[in-house]
Amino acid sequence: MSQLFSIEIVISNKPQARDPEGETISRDLIHKEGFQSVKEVRTGKMLVAKVEASSEVEAKNKVLLMCNDLRLYNPVAHSLNIKVSA
Amino acid sequence: MSQLFSIEIVISNKPQARDPEGETISRDLIHKEGFQSVKEVRTGKMLVAKVEASSEVEAKNKVLLMCNDLRLYNPVAHSLNIKVSA
Repeated sequence: MSQLFSIEIVISNKPQARDPEGETISRDLIHKEGFQSVKEVRTGKMLVAKVEASSEVEAKNKVLLMCNDLRLYNPVAHSLNIKVSA
Repeated sequence: MSQLFSIEIVISNKPQARDPEGETISRDLIHKEGFQSVKEVRTGKMLVAKVEASSEVEAKNKVLLMCNDLRLYNPVAHSLNIKVSA
């Protein structure tokens, strides 16, 4: 019996790579406006997919397969994080 | 004593609003390539901020204040989700 699972996909630059978008938000917006307690900002793209599957594990596997097949991210530059939405 | 907290900020279109980016990914990419078990895709922007604060609650409050002050999102069109990163 298949159910609908809500799967969160987060695509972000790898931690060892720079994140120009986050650096700009941090430097030119946040620090200029005096929010000095914010030390770093990293950005990412979030997709939430509703996936039909018989289990959480199957749903996550389908999404992983899809992200790789459709090149939704670039494995060289991005890290991919897939989890079941709370 | 202040610590560094990692706070996740997700900005997405409100659930009752359409999400053209997600609709396009779903219709023109995912379904065309045969991933029929993916029923819906919604997109969002994720920011992860490192925030200096004395508690998780204070860190989240600082981020909420910042998102509103700097107009990091549009309260009319977007929903904002702030949580402590695992």
